[in-house]
Amino acid sequence: MITADLDAMGQRARLAARELGFAGTKAKDRALGLIAAALLERQPELLAANEADMRDGEAAGMSVALLDRLLLTPERLAGIAADVRSVAALPDPVGEMFDVRTLPSGLTVGRKRVPLGVIAAIYESRPNVTIDIAALCLKSGNAVILRGGREALRSCLALAEVLREVIGEAGLPQDAVQYVSDPDRSLVDHLLTMRDAIDLLVPRGGAELIRFVAERATMPVVTGGIGVCHTYVDAAADVEQAVRIAYNAKVRRPTICNALDTLLVHRDIAAEYLPLLAREWAHADVAMHCDAEALAVLAPLQGEMALALSPAQEDDWGKEFLALVAAVKVIGSLDEALEHIARYGSGHSEAIVTEDYSHAMRFLNEVDAAAVYVNASTQFTDGAQFGLGAEVGISTQKFHARGPMGLRELTSYKWLIFGQGQVRP
Amino acid sequence: MITADLDAMGQRARLAARELGFAGTKAKDRALGLIAAALLERQPELLAANEADMRDGEAAGMSVALLDRLLLTPERLAGIAADVRSVAALPDPVGEMFDVRTLPSGLTVGRKRVPLGVIAAIYESRPNVTIDIAALCLKSGNAVILRGGREALRSCLALAEVLREVIGEAGLPQDAVQYVSDPDRSLVDHLLTMRDAIDLLVPRGGAELIRFVAERATMPVVTGGIGVCHTYVDAAADVEQAVRIAYNAKVRRPTICNALDTLLVHRDIAAEYLPLLAREWAHADVAMHCDAEALAVLAPLQGEMALALSPAQEDDWGKEFLALVAAVKVIGSLDEALEHIARYGSGHSEAIVTEDYSHAMRFLNEVDAAAVYVNASTQFTDGAQFGLGAEVGISTQKFHARGPMGLRELTSYKWLIFGQGQVRP
Repeated sequence: MITADLDAMGQRARLAARELGFAGTKAKDRALGLIAAALLERQPELLAANEADMRDGEAAGMSVALLDRLLLTPERLAGIAADVRSVAALPDPVGEMFDVRTLPSGLTVGRKRVPLGVIAAIYESRPNVTIDIAALCLKSGNAVILRGGREALRSCLALAEVLREVIGEAGLPQDAVQYVSDPDRSLVDHLLTMRDAIDLLVPRGGAELIRFVAERATMPVVTGGIGVCHTYVDAAADVEQAVRIAYNAKVRRPTICNALDTLLVHRDIAAEYLPLLAREWAHADVAMHCDAEALAVLAPLQGEMALALSPAQEDDWGKEFLALVAAVKVIGSLDEALEHIARYGSGHSEAIVTEDYSHAMRFLNEVDAAAVYVNASTQFTDGAQFGLGAEVGISTQKFHARGPMGLRELTSYKWLIFGQGQVRP
Repeated sequence: MITADLDAMGQRARLAARELGFAGTKAKDRALGLIAAALLERQPELLAANEADMRDGEAAGMSVALLDRLLLTPERLAGIAADVRSVAALPDPVGEMFDVRTLPSGLTVGRKRVPLGVIAAIYESRPNVTIDIAALCLKSGNAVILRGGREALRSCLALAEVLREVIGEAGLPQDAVQYVSDPDRSLVDHLLTMRDAIDLLVPRGGAELIRFVAERATMPVVTGGIGVCHTYVDAAADVEQAVRIAYNAKVRRPTICNALDTLLVHRDIAAEYLPLLAREWAHADVAMHCDAEALAVLAPLQGEMALALSPAQEDDWGKEFLALVAAVKVIGSLDEALEHIARYGSGHSEAIVTEDYSHAMRFLNEVDAAAVYVNASTQFTDGAQFGLGAEVGISTQKFHARGPMGLRELTSYKWLIFGQGQVRP
């Protein structure tokens, strides 16, 4: 593949976007239903492609975290298909009119939601992202150019092939979904210059990729996905609830961006709380990188509970572990928690556990992050969990969209003005 | 001024933004009221600064269009003050909760509107922009770094000084408004790299500036302001209304971006319509660059009506004239009009004049522009006219905001999640 092929892909996407932009909701939902069915019917070929990717990944020594992201199972495919069906069941954002009003001039002015146009997504080796993004783009009337990680190439290509076939069968333009299969890195460089063909670029991956894309791309970019997430257990927390929440936030899936990285515990509750949590975390093999105070509480219990304790290093604060590791710090006040989060957080998901109303309200108001929680696990930061059906990514920037990006976040609007001959004085 | 000073300015803006983000509506509205009053009370010094700029501009041979943009008059200052008061009267977008719902998990999830943070604006020599942008940023809780054109330096500095003094008097952080007074171009280059200090960059100016900024900036940018605007007079137009609308769209203020550039006229109505419009335009000294068919209609009347006719050149289509010049083309169908606009339009403001319902609806649906009109002058594309109070600019991109950008367009949101101990299954 050469850059001219990529330009041609961009032009085909532009044409497909124009056609898809005028497609009715019924046609788009029918295509989504067929995609969900095909994901189940064609499981054998999809799983076979994924098994080949997994074998190579294992042989190449990919980490457990990365292999977990690469893996497709019948259950995961069924989950992805269910997400596609829930996208189909959501209202179509395209065509919605909002802010309609008649102004003193007599003009009726309103905004009508329209697709963004062509979206390009660069992501790592997570095959499910192929379907999530394509389904959301299709429903919101956008064409998409996909490029997943090299390690997931066979899985992603198999999924993209299913998508294109089914979209064609449904009478919509196949080029609404295109996959860049050539792993040549220089193609990404070229993609970043295709300002006329691409309306939005969504990078999903490590901090390095996202920084590279944000600095080089000539078109709008939504950055995100780096989650350095804190849970702060306030002095007024319900202790049992705080154990459940911190356990879930770390252990449920430690490899996703909304997983707990740092636990902050108020001094007044540390001696009671930390041993209870540490026992649960120990059962799940969570390693704890503790500050001196937390260590003083837990070290005496280390033998009895088989805790994996070590002193926290400075770079543990603000680190995204993506593994069964947590940094733990004892602090003296809500203000200290807010300062720590402002300094080390990545603006993704932050939680307080407390029964104190004023502390809850201050935390909600003052923490500057995409998702701010009271008394719940940060693992809920997810498009489906927030009622968006699925997500194209989680934005940690403030521009255009923040947090999980679902259908509406893939649209723009135009102003429509209904006049009766008005001229401006 | 050196780049380190600009970095320091960025840090001060960041601190001011944090303080302003928590400021109450009452405090912000009070400051805006004081600003409006100061613009009237301190007219002499503001007009004197502007006169100095105007004298130098005239001496330097600035064009009539640019001098018109530079000019402040008592009437224009009063208009600007009125816009500031109307911004104060608008609801505060900050703190609004929307999309709040309780999900099957029992979590109550919603979005709360928050300021973007720090906004930087680079604009040309239009002093009023200084106040428009600062007022909107103040009300929406954003700090702003301003840099106007060199030719307006004294006017802009005088206005910025008033802003800073009044904001301080009102008990809000003075550094919520800062002005980069050093005309050194390399400071702009540095500004474009200040991704950590600036959340949004708004360039307002010529195509070259906007392209330069969009390609170089490392932070989000809203581009716009280039308006190649068409008015299409359909075969089914009310002829008198179409004359009024096209006259207003061109003549009211020919130097702004929403002014008519190209008039498209359906063949069936051209012989009746064009002479009526041409007579009106001739009174206002509008030069008409006509295609062969329009010329054939109008040339015989040239002497009688004192028309300024000339044959259109290829580069007249898609040109933003910013002057009393219009390109005129006779076409055969609505489809042809849609194609012409898709090819030559800049996605700013486009109008159809028609009494045909289906044609009106097709035009509204199919034209891909920030503002699409039926039976009204494109000169209405403006934040105040659209009910936004004022505008920070007119976006012609689809990302984040499109068309006039008012208060809401200067905000982001965060997700708030109210739990009762939920953990994710």
